Amino acid sequence: MTEPSAPVNIAEKLARFSDLWAQKKVADLNDYEVKLAKLKGEFIWHTHAETDEFFLVISGRLTIRLRDGDVVLGPGELYVVPRGVEHCPVAEEETAILLLEPAGVLNTGDQGGPLTRAAEILG
Amino acid sequence: MTEPSAPVNIAEKLARFSDLWAQKKVADLNDYEVKLAKLKGEFIWHTHAETDEFFLVISGRLTIRLRDGDVVLGPGELYVVPRGVEHCPVAEEETAILLLEPAGVLNTGDQGGPLTRAAEILG
Repeated sequence: MTEPSAPVNIAEKLARFSDLWAQKKVADLNDYEVKLAKLKGEFIWHTHAETDEFFLVISGRLTIRLRDGDVVLGPGELYVVPRGVEHCPVAEEETAILLLEPAGVLNTGDQGGPLTRAAEILG
Repeated sequence: MTEPSAPVNIAEKLARFSDLWAQKKVADLNDYEVKLAKLKGEFIWHTHAETDEFFLVISGRLTIRLRDGDVVLGPGELYVVPRGVEHCPVAEEETAILLLEPAGVLNTGDQGGPLTRAAEILG
C-alpha cells in the first residue's frame, strides 16, 4: 500500500517563499502546472500565443491590464486571459495568486527579457 | 473596443445554484473546463482513465477516498487525483469545490449510472 500524496495547503505553501513574480509549481494536472506566485508592482505587457492563462487571486488585488480595459480581481475571483491577448499584471499591494497553464509556459510570454523565469518546483 | 469579459467571483457563482453533485462550468481554459460544484454525502467509486482531476475546496470539507487511504481537504487546499486512480468523494457537510479537467469528462468516470451528469454552463 502506497500512501497517497499529501494535499496542497495554499497558505502553507505561500508562507514558504517571498520572492516576487516567481512562479512556484505545487502540482501537476496532466501536462498543466498548478503554480503559486506573489506579485507586487507592475509586470510587463506580454502575450502567450499558444495558450490561455488561468488566474485565481488568493489574497490582495490583481489588476490585469488588457488593451481593451482592466480586469480587477480580489480574493476568490478568477479570470482566464485568452491566448493571444496582450496583458500586463499589476498589483498595488502584495498579491498572492494561483496560476494554471500548460507546463513550460514562461511568465513573460513572447517578450522574454530580464524578468523571464521558468517555474520552480515548491516541494 | 470590446469590453473584456467579467471576472468570475466564486462566491457569487456558488450563490446561484443549490443542486448537489452537479458540475457548473464557469470558465474555459484551452480545452479544459473550470467548474464549481456543491457536494454533500457520498458519491460513487469511479476512475478517469484518461485524465488527472483537480480539486480545490472553497468551503466545507472534502474527503477523497482512495484505495490506499483518504485525502482530506479543507478550504484553501487542493489535490490532483492522478488518472486511473479509483476515488470516491465524500462530504459530511455541504462542501463547495472548484474542479478543473478536460472538457467532456463525466462526473462518474468509468462507472456511469444514475448520478452521471454532464457539466452545465453557469452563465
